[in-house]
Amino acid sequence: MIGKFTDGGGRILSKITVVKNILDANDRIADENRKLFDEKKIFVLNLMSSPGAGKTSLLEKTIEALQEQYKIIVIEGDIQGSADAERIAKFDIPVVQINTGGACHIDGNMIRETLPGFDLSQVDLLITENVGNLVCPAEFNIGENAKVMILSTPEGSDKPLKYPLIFQKSEVMIINKIDLIPYVDFDMVKAKKDALSLNRDLQIFEVSCKTSEGLQDWYRWLSDRIRAYKNG
Amino acid sequence: MIGKFTDGGGRILSKITVVKNILDANDRIADENRKLFDEKKIFVLNLMSSPGAGKTSLLEKTIEALQEQYKIIVIEGDIQGSADAERIAKFDIPVVQINTGGACHIDGNMIRETLPGFDLSQVDLLITENVGNLVCPAEFNIGENAKVMILSTPEGSDKPLKYPLIFQKSEVMIINKIDLIPYVDFDMVKAKKDALSLNRDLQIFEVSCKTSEGLQDWYRWLSDRIRAYKNG
Repeated sequence: MIGKFTDGGGRILSKITVVKNILDANDRIADENRKLFDEKKIFVLNLMSSPGAGKTSLLEKTIEALQEQYKIIVIEGDIQGSADAERIAKFDIPVVQINTGGACHIDGNMIRETLPGFDLSQVDLLITENVGNLVCPAEFNIGENAKVMILSTPEGSDKPLKYPLIFQKSEVMIINKIDLIPYVDFDMVKAKKDALSLNRDLQIFEVSCKTSEGLQDWYRWLSDRIRAYKNG
Repeated sequence: MIGKFTDGGGRILSKITVVKNILDANDRIADENRKLFDEKKIFVLNLMSSPGAGKTSLLEKTIEALQEQYKIIVIEGDIQGSADAERIAKFDIPVVQINTGGACHIDGNMIRETLPGFDLSQVDLLITENVGNLVCPAEFNIGENAKVMILSTPEGSDKPLKYPLIFQKSEVMIINKIDLIPYVDFDMVKAKKDALSLNRDLQIFEVSCKTSEGLQDWYRWLSDRIRAYKNG
């Protein structure tokens, strides 16, 4: 998050205006991305979570399930390295790795600079995997149709009330690693109740990317949304 | 992370200077905090990890183990809420909750503003629990003696190479939730090797805050460090 810097003089720096300018500039670029995606009829997901909640695993499962129906491309966002892009490349779909070089989130401009690396004709679905971070990515639009977040059961059911923005901004919350529920302290009722108290329209799917339990509902939601967008 | 903003004109904004100023200003305040801690002979830990890796659980265990030997105080950092401070208050030790109001990390000034809320005489150990985030907190010194990070096994062994800075800046890596190893994909050898490749002086402890396995070594390290500091 970049909105609240403090210094010796007081809690909020006057440089807050810089931050607002950056967010405004980002929104303008995100809007331009959105226009391009609309021209090409590309449905775009912005996939966000803590490190290790299962973004890449969900991506792998989703590609496996839907790549015969839809032409999918992927943008991987990491601070450094290309491990995730290599996992995705195995599915023989176009993938570009963004290395943010330290930055804690993906922004609209990073996406824009990445797009010339793809052939966008006939693409149905672009999935962007954000940097693993439950805080900062929620503030930066990239021109997506929907923000989708993952909460994994080992993280605990107290997360919605502690990291509210990402739950408020997301259209979907995927509760992953339900296979671990017997071994971790996770109160499913509380997690869902607290998340819905922040965002009553939140779609919730309980899944295990390891056992594939629950994933069919997610595939169906995504497929329905892609079709509705293309026909809309 | 706040160092790399992008806009339409190029990859890095000229406002990068603002970011540098902020980090410099933070370092000055952290140095002042450090002077105060040295006067009072208070050993300070900055505890960092992803959301849900077990910072508060480690804190609870550590307080339980060491509160008879040392006078401990705690600063809890969260975006909002006071759930963690309430967990710590049960041990009848002084705790102050910082709500960052959106910010993704604790900084030196937040700590400074919190200190008047404590009676600092006779305090041996201050533990600060940072906002759950594997990226941004590593950049902000608070005047600590040591940064301690937790990596939990469900997050996966690929994290050191993807989030290098926090591994480089930390003196200790606690690998938590080793009780879950049979149920998750976690390559202990790789995690340790990659972390040590980033920081060959990293102290590593393998623990389970749930079963208490491995915690004795951590208590001993911490106790030794506190004593060495007080006698130093």
